[in-house]
Amino acid sequence: MTLKGLNTKALKAGDPEPTAAPAGTFRLYNMRFCPWAERALLYVARKGIDVEVVNIDLAAKPEWYFEKHYQGKVPTLEHNGKYVIESSLIPQYLDDILPEDSVLPKDPFERVKQKILSEKTLAISSAFYGLVAAFKDPSVKEEKLGNLKKALNDTEKLFENTYFGGAEPSFADYLTFPFVERVWWVSHIEGFTGFNVKNFPCEKDYPHLTKWFNAMVSRPEISKNIMPIEHALAFLESYKKGAANYDAGL
Amino acid sequence: MTLKGLNTKALKAGDPEPTAAPAGTFRLYNMRFCPWAERALLYVARKGIDVEVVNIDLAAKPEWYFEKHYQGKVPTLEHNGKYVIESSLIPQYLDDILPEDSVLPKDPFERVKQKILSEKTLAISSAFYGLVAAFKDPSVKEEKLGNLKKALNDTEKLFENTYFGGAEPSFADYLTFPFVERVWWVSHIEGFTGFNVKNFPCEKDYPHLTKWFNAMVSRPEISKNIMPIEHALAFLESYKKGAANYDAGL
Repeated sequence: MTLKGLNTKALKAGDPEPTAAPAGTFRLYNMRFCPWAERALLYVARKGIDVEVVNIDLAAKPEWYFEKHYQGKVPTLEHNGKYVIESSLIPQYLDDILPEDSVLPKDPFERVKQKILSEKTLAISSAFYGLVAAFKDPSVKEEKLGNLKKALNDTEKLFENTYFGGAEPSFADYLTFPFVERVWWVSHIEGFTGFNVKNFPCEKDYPHLTKWFNAMVSRPEISKNIMPIEHALAFLESYKKGAANYDAGL
Repeated sequence: MTLKGLNTKALKAGDPEPTAAPAGTFRLYNMRFCPWAERALLYVARKGIDVEVVNIDLAAKPEWYFEKHYQGKVPTLEHNGKYVIESSLIPQYLDDILPEDSVLPKDPFERVKQKILSEKTLAISSAFYGLVAAFKDPSVKEEKLGNLKKALNDTEKLFENTYFGGAEPSFADYLTFPFVERVWWVSHIEGFTGFNVKNFPCEKDYPHLTKWFNAMVSRPEISKNIMPIEHALAFLESYKKGAANYDAGL
């Protein structure tokens, strides 16, 4: 198990600050249901790095956390007394310090292509957050669902092989997965998206994306580290009620 | 002169597509007044790369341009039949293919620090675009000016030396400069920002930023390649009238 402490309770305001991570080790400040933090989690898992995970309560952030991330967001990677932030930069940092097993390709054009792909698929993230607004205002759901389907459709057209990285997943695959997974989560809510969670998003309408999603969830670095769906649904339920429970399922 | 064709008329819908840039050469699709494109321009100038600049009319984009950038935005770098987009990715690509004179530091933490700094200073960009909205709606000006001053103040606190890169400009310096320069441009409009263009933004209120701006404009890769202020003001005038003239000053 490379991700130690993944399913531990979130630290909140008033909780003591953990002592500094020992030199040479990695610590990742996380929130168990945050797709941005999951990008970094999956990347370290793929690289097989031993990481201590410290979960943060984003509704009652510990005061000391702002010394690690100026906005108090997750993820933050602690390494040798330094802090690296941003879900797209932590993976690049990890590849820079451990280049022998770089997930990003060595070829400069293939490298930048992965980064561009990961920016293009952010349309799914925006559309997902838009759809979540329908929890509070059901009147916007159809419009937001339309935006989501467009984003999925645009993403469908980006595939040239099973993965964005080709025959193996690369940077864009790990950075995109958490947002598609979030759509899969909310698709478990009866009648919310209309997607079938067992044929997701839909082999007929999105053949590449469906094959990709199935391939991704079957990979050990993903299957071992994603939140169990019951935890995710318990979190969504608390979120819908306006009091997100960052310890849902524990 | 490394930037060939910088002050040439913008190509627009109906204009023929330029023939492919010869193998081994660089072409940059640009708009003379676009701060995002200027990031790439200054980076290639700093690296001393010979680049052919092709300007694009963003109000009447040539049809063929969408084959080079899927959204039709600038900048786009053409190199060996491939296209690299995004103002923060083109510099990284250039450093990846020409690592011997990498502007980004080699040390992984210093590298990511430059990227994080360039994201933090984007607050100036957002505030600048907010302020520009006051051209059409003067009632929002004071609020937007307040946002801009906050962004400049936050940036002021990021300096540890003359440049973001230390004693020499680095990635974050070239990526930030165009937006501060745009604030300097609009400060030439009587009574608009209240900043003094000869003591900009203000030695007393922003000592680091003022020293940095003066140091940046004195560097040859910048002084030789930025738009003359008369061209910039002619462009702003056309923009205010609702008909941006991308050939202003030519």
